[in-house]
Amino acid sequence: MKLKVILVEPLYDGNVGSVARAMKNFGYHDLVLVNPCKIEDYGLAMASHARDVLQMSRSFGSLQQALQGCDLVVGTTGKRLDEAQHHLRLHLRVPCLTPEELAKKLYGKDGTVALLLGREDCGLNSQELALCDILVSIPTKSEYPVMNLSHSAAILFYELSQLDGGECNNVEMAHGESLSILQDKTRSLLAEVSYPPHKLDFTLLMLRRILGRAELTEREARTILGLIKRTRWRIAAREDEQARKENGK
Amino acid sequence: MKLKVILVEPLYDGNVGSVARAMKNFGYHDLVLVNPCKIEDYGLAMASHARDVLQMSRSFGSLQQALQGCDLVVGTTGKRLDEAQHHLRLHLRVPCLTPEELAKKLYGKDGTVALLLGREDCGLNSQELALCDILVSIPTKSEYPVMNLSHSAAILFYELSQLDGGECNNVEMAHGESLSILQDKTRSLLAEVSYPPHKLDFTLLMLRRILGRAELTEREARTILGLIKRTRWRIAAREDEQARKENGK
Repeated sequence: MKLKVILVEPLYDGNVGSVARAMKNFGYHDLVLVNPCKIEDYGLAMASHARDVLQMSRSFGSLQQALQGCDLVVGTTGKRLDEAQHHLRLHLRVPCLTPEELAKKLYGKDGTVALLLGREDCGLNSQELALCDILVSIPTKSEYPVMNLSHSAAILFYELSQLDGGECNNVEMAHGESLSILQDKTRSLLAEVSYPPHKLDFTLLMLRRILGRAELTEREARTILGLIKRTRWRIAAREDEQARKENGK
Repeated sequence: MKLKVILVEPLYDGNVGSVARAMKNFGYHDLVLVNPCKIEDYGLAMASHARDVLQMSRSFGSLQQALQGCDLVVGTTGKRLDEAQHHLRLHLRVPCLTPEELAKKLYGKDGTVALLLGREDCGLNSQELALCDILVSIPTKSEYPVMNLSHSAAILFYELSQLDGGECNNVEMAHGESLSILQDKTRSLLAEVSYPPHKLDFTLLMLRRILGRAELTEREARTILGLIKRTRWRIAAREDEQARKENGK
């Protein structure tokens, strides 16, 4: 498993530097920034001996660009955000994993995992969270739930790095491309069975989250694609037969 | 278990403030400083909404004084220190625990535990380590093992706070009955789309495992059941229409 750490619109270069340091402490080097603040001397100072991680980081203008090539997208969300995103969360009833549960889920998997960390003041927004296959939240206390960005990052790296221990039978995770084809084909199927349009996006997102939490393998993705193809083919065949009969009448 | 966090001769007030914030994030409030640097505005800023923890902290001139009233003393030591303290470690034959092992050890215990964190540049010295009952070390990578003080602290608080028993969001898991209906309906759908019979059981098992790993919620189970119903209904409707046409021919 390769980890790509993506900071979305970080506001303070000290935090970016601190995240870089924590990454290197736990053996991660791939840092990606989306519309970051300017990284100045203080950021470099906080990176300390992980200046190389900071210097090799790449910046993008949009999250979509930053996510290119990732097989699984993990979003972090704090308790404070739970409130703001209450309608979305309630709506989706997405169980949020703890860092430990996330690490267990990813154990023994191959592929590139994007770990998204949001802005210091307001985290990831609804659109960004909608791009995530899995949500993770650090169980803090309600008295003061909002953690420093680099503290959250350090805890996540700490948990994830414990994966490295075993390299037992690695299973090929579903490729990002297969998941995206799966979304497209499911959308077509739902349209063909006249699924209520106002529920469509919500249901597709729910399915995406279910498959994300299940850490779908490439083989499973292909099997499900096969099922959908067969079902759509069946519906189309019926329609063709009918059309033929109608034309032949 | 009560936790007393003891910072031994911290050099930077920003780190002291950051530790205070991480403490409050995980429900700890008892901060003790031994010969600390002066805490100025930057320290208060880093404490953010945990300013109270910082302001209620007590300072002592010696570690012995700070340890008064503690039942168990836990010292933190980095990999870098392992080298320097090699003879001591060998001598004491103290196995160093990981944070997770420490949390497990303390689980269900009563009493006051002192958690000692040393100086940013050289940690705890031999005399200080000799006062410890247990040593804990965060498993970092040898490429860059030295963590930021407040990052180490955050990881330790995170692990220890899991002792409390989580209070995370309770989501209604899918009922066994719903899962079993889901299996039946999926089996019917697959039969209706002429899924190869020799693959049927295997595919149903695969789907069951995927949903099991996803820890499906009841609501999600119902949404998927709705999808299947709609698809089967669509296929059946086509067949009915056709049959009607054939009869009417």
